[in-house]
This record gives sequence, structure tokens and C-alpha cells, in this order.
Amino acid sequence: MFEGLYSALEQSEVITLYRHINPDCDALGSQWGLATWLKHRFPLKRVIVLGHQKMTNGLFPDSDEIDDETVRQSLAIVLDTANVRRIDDERWQSARQIIHLDHHPQIEHFADLEYVIDHYAATCEILAEFFSTVDQEPLEADVAEYLYRGLLTDTLSFKTSNTTEHTLAMASYLAQSGLNIPQINRDLFDVPLKEYEFASAIRAEAQILDEHLMISVIDQAFLDRWSMTASQAKDQVYQFGGIREIEIWAVFAKDHDDQRNTWWAGSLRSKTLPVNDIAMNYRGGGHKNAAGCKCLDDASLNALIADLRRRLKENQA
Amino acid sequence: MFEGLYSALEQSEVITLYRHINPDCDALGSQWGLATWLKHRFPLKRVIVLGHQKMTNGLFPDSDEIDDETVRQSLAIVLDTANVRRIDDERWQSARQIIHLDHHPQIEHFADLEYVIDHYAATCEILAEFFSTVDQEPLEADVAEYLYRGLLTDTLSFKTSNTTEHTLAMASYLAQSGLNIPQINRDLFDVPLKEYEFASAIRAEAQILDEHLMISVIDQAFLDRWSMTASQAKDQVYQFGGIREIEIWAVFAKDHDDQRNTWWAGSLRSKTLPVNDIAMNYRGGGHKNAAGCKCLDDASLNALIADLRRRLKENQA
Repeated sequence: MFEGLYSALEQSEVITLYRHINPDCDALGSQWGLATWLKHRFPLKRVIVLGHQKMTNGLFPDSDEIDDETVRQSLAIVLDTANVRRIDDERWQSARQIIHLDHHPQIEHFADLEYVIDHYAATCEILAEFFSTVDQEPLEADVAEYLYRGLLTDTLSFKTSNTTEHTLAMASYLAQSGLNIPQINRDLFDVPLKEYEFASAIRAEAQILDEHLMISVIDQAFLDRWSMTASQAKDQVYQFGGIREIEIWAVFAKDHDDQRNTWWAGSLRSKTLPVNDIAMNYRGGGHKNAAGCKCLDDASLNALIADLRRRLKENQA
Repeated sequence: MFEGLYSALEQSEVITLYRHINPDCDALGSQWGLATWLKHRFPLKRVIVLGHQKMTNGLFPDSDEIDDETVRQSLAIVLDTANVRRIDDERWQSARQIIHLDHHPQIEHFADLEYVIDHYAATCEILAEFFSTVDQEPLEADVAEYLYRGLLTDTLSFKTSNTTEHTLAMASYLAQSGLNIPQINRDLFDVPLKEYEFASAIRAEAQILDEHLMISVIDQAFLDRWSMTASQAKDQVYQFGGIREIEIWAVFAKDHDDQRNTWWAGSLRSKTLPVNDIAMNYRGGGHKNAAGCKCLDDASLNALIADLRRRLKENQA
């Protein structure tokens, strides 16, 4: 199935690689994994990694810079991005040929060649399979490590429902490259001490409603005390995820815009009950068991919490 | 390599299976995985799971009961246990034939046939390989789930240094059986709310020494307030494990014997520096990066903490 991809790569002297905005480790891992693999095999090609936004954890190099004319001569590969408007560098559309390589459900067609496999856990999983069909030997360790990071983050360490036999087989293939698995896990999941202490404080704020709902409501004074943002507070929602009695959990934090208008923003999670339909009634949405909402005033926040309690009760009835 | 094992199983009408005391999910998973696999394939054989001690999490059935004469007629298989004195039911030695199947380093020879592969992460990994060589089809889901639990717990979700290409390949093989991977992870790793709140309280007690050492010292009043034991407090040492700045972490808790003699017991962990040599100087020991100690008076506790601080300083020098 990857013959067309391989010959397109082989025939292109210049290849530009694109990722989505707010890049995660699957976006960056697939981009740097493919770039590094190409550089090992075709040292004379120009392989250019594009994207303005940086990921802050220091695990990937900075993007390259390139003039528009070179982009026009290039084969463009858009990685891990389903919507055109989320591609971080709009010059992809000027390229000579365009390939879309992704594991998100296809919502737009914008490429000459498409490798979209939406039952795979990660774009890195698709690339691992592609590389294994081309190469006889294990991958170079740097390529394998980039891809392994994408697998680990998009499956939360092989725990989510998108983890399949194939995901684990690809992880096994990557591990053949002599990866330092504990170190890769530490690089991705260890947190700075300040974030750890902030998480402990958010845990201490949590309240339990109706025995199965856990929420933490973080006001501006709390955020100021820790010099943290609403977004950083909401990221800690996973702290409430592994509790046997808790079916739905959420963090709400006070957020504001540049004009100092304030509102509540929230991250909602659940084990099995849907929460995205509730989030959609409060300017939000997301996946069935992982959704978000924003721009809530106090009354809306209380109404949303009441809806979550109703969802639990309906389920018990 | 497993021909001898298969023919021994095939030829035995009665098979007794043994595990170690204080059984973990690799001991129980390998025992129930093998028992269930045998029952699926040889419904006329008597397959008996032995072991007096129970695991409390309710994920495995209770052991069987059996008379001594039946044990004497049986093929005994000792699973996941390197030392004779840790086998939970001493009747194994009266059996007609004895097999030892284990991933711990071999320290005693006590069996007629040995399948000891100490570079595997789990005894369940050995069984998965054995089953894959015998069967053409994926395993029954119950067998695969028992083995997957052993893999997950002995590798802490595929994060430890014993996780290899082969471990992940066996996980992939087991996942072919249509496992519910998120549910298996929740069953193993979700904690009761009371334990979660106890953990939050232990986090709040933690102190940081020399920037890279984190310790929590839990006295009797704290344990009484939570109705928890020293052992349950020490089990929470993993709470301090994923912090970027912290190299060594420990929980010490007040323990006592039946005569109300009291002392400090501790669990020590580290990222890379050895801590077991220090533990050995305080009535303890263990693995290089995960050790324990007990029976410390106040002066010894302080001396041990001073030794940990010295170890950090030596390393920075």
C-alpha cells in the first residue's frame, strides 16, 4: 500500500514536512521521524521541517526556515492534521505535489496522495509500518525514538482504547532499535516540581458530589498564588482519572481575555458516560469521554455541574 | 525450546500449579493463564491452582483445594518463584514430576525441567511465547487477559527497563484476543477514593532536601487519622516518582510489632543512583533503584537520610 509514497519520496529532490498548530508529540514525532529517516537514506535530498509554533518540552529540534520558491518546488507532506486551517504554515498548498499522512478521521480532501488510516492510534504508527515495509534492518535509534514518543503520547502509555495489536507490534518494532524505554517515558511524562506541587494543591481543592463526580473549581486568586494559567490548571484534570468510585471528573478555572473579561473554562472527563453532549450545550465539545467548555458565567457553571449530576443519576436509575 | 514442556503437560492427567507467597499479578496471571489454557485444550485433565494467600483485588478466582495424594500423582509446575521457601504450598516437592517456569534469576535448582528466562519482564511473557508456539489462532480472551495483567504490572505499563521488543511483541500477540485494554488498565491501576485521599495527604507531607531528595515521614498519629498501616503508607512512595528535579525519593512510616515495639520502616526509590547499598546498612536491601529498610530508631532514620544526602552530593561533585 505504500509503494506510491515511497516512489514520491524517492523522486523528489526537495521535501517539505508540515504539522498541525499546537503540535503534540505525534505531530512532532511523525515530522521529525520522517525527516530523519529521509536524511539517513537520501543524504543529498533537501528535507525541510516547517511549523511556526514551538513545543516547549525541548524534545524536538527547532523548525527549519525556507524561502517560498523552494516550497513551490517541493513535495509537501502534511502530517497528523485533518483540517486545512490547522496546518501550521500555509505554503503547503503552493507545493508541486501534496501528500496527506494522518490517523485522524478524514474530513477534507486536499492532497494528491492520501495515506489516512483512522483506526491507527497515531500518525507515528503509520510511519512505523511504512518504514518496516521498506527496510530490512531495525531503524536508526533517533528515528525510532521520535516515533515511539508519538505512540506513547497518543495512547497515554498504551492504555487508551485506540491501543491495538498493531500499535503494540509497531512499538515492538521500534524497540528493536535499542531504545532506552525508561528514559523516553521520563522525558515525556516527568513533570517539573512546581507543576507537581500545583497538582497537589488542585487535588486538595477537589470536592466530591453524589459520590461519583469529582470537581475542582480554581479561582483567580489560586492561579495568581501559583503563577499558573487557567489552561495549566485544566491540564491537571488527569489527576482525578484513576479513582475507582469516580465516573465523571472535571477542573474549572477562571480565564480571561485581553480586555480582562473573565469567565470559567473547564475540562471534563469520564470513564464511560458521554460528557461531550453536555459540553456542547456550554460553548464546548470534544470526544465522548474527554471534552472541554469555556466562556461560562457563574450561573452557567452551576447549570453545567447540575447537568453532570443529572447524567450520573440517569445512569444509576 | 518448549517441546519438553508441551509433552509433559500432554502426558499428565493431574497438574498442580504453584505461585509465590504475597502473590502479585504476574504470579497469579501466569498461574491462572496456564490453568485456563490447559482447561480449554484438555477438558478431561484435572488442573489445580494452589496457594493459601489471597490477592485482595478480586481480579483472580480463589485457589482450589486438593488432597495430598492427588498432589503426589501430579505434575507440579512452580511459576514465578525463584526460592523454594517462597513457594506457597510446600506439597509441590511430593509431586511425581516438577517443572520450574520463571523469569527471576535462578538461585536454586529444584525441578526436573526448567524454563527460566531471566531477561524476560514477566513469567506471563514466557507463557505467551509458549502458547504462541503451540497455537495457530489467537488465545481465548480469558487466557490472554490473565497474561496481559502480568505483563502490565511487572513492567509498570511498559515503562521499566525490563520492557523489550519481545515484551511488546507478546503484548501485541495477547491483544489479538480482543482485549479491552482501557478496562484492564483500570482494573489494575485505579485506586479506591480513600487511598487517593491518603495519597494526597502524603504528598502534602513531603519535604524536599538539597533540591533533589523528596521524603515523607509518616508518624503514628497520621496513620491513625487515616486508619492506614505503615505498609500502605510506604506503598505510596510511587507518588514522588515522576518529578523532573527529584533523583531520590522515600517514604518512612512508623511501624510496630505485636508487642507494640515501634520503629521506622521505609521505601526508597531513585532514578539512576544506587540506593540498595545504603538500605543494606539499615537492615534492608532490594534492587539498585528500589529498596526498603525497617526497624530504624530515630537516630538511624536521621543517619539514613544523611547517607542519602551524601549520595546525592557525591554524584554532583
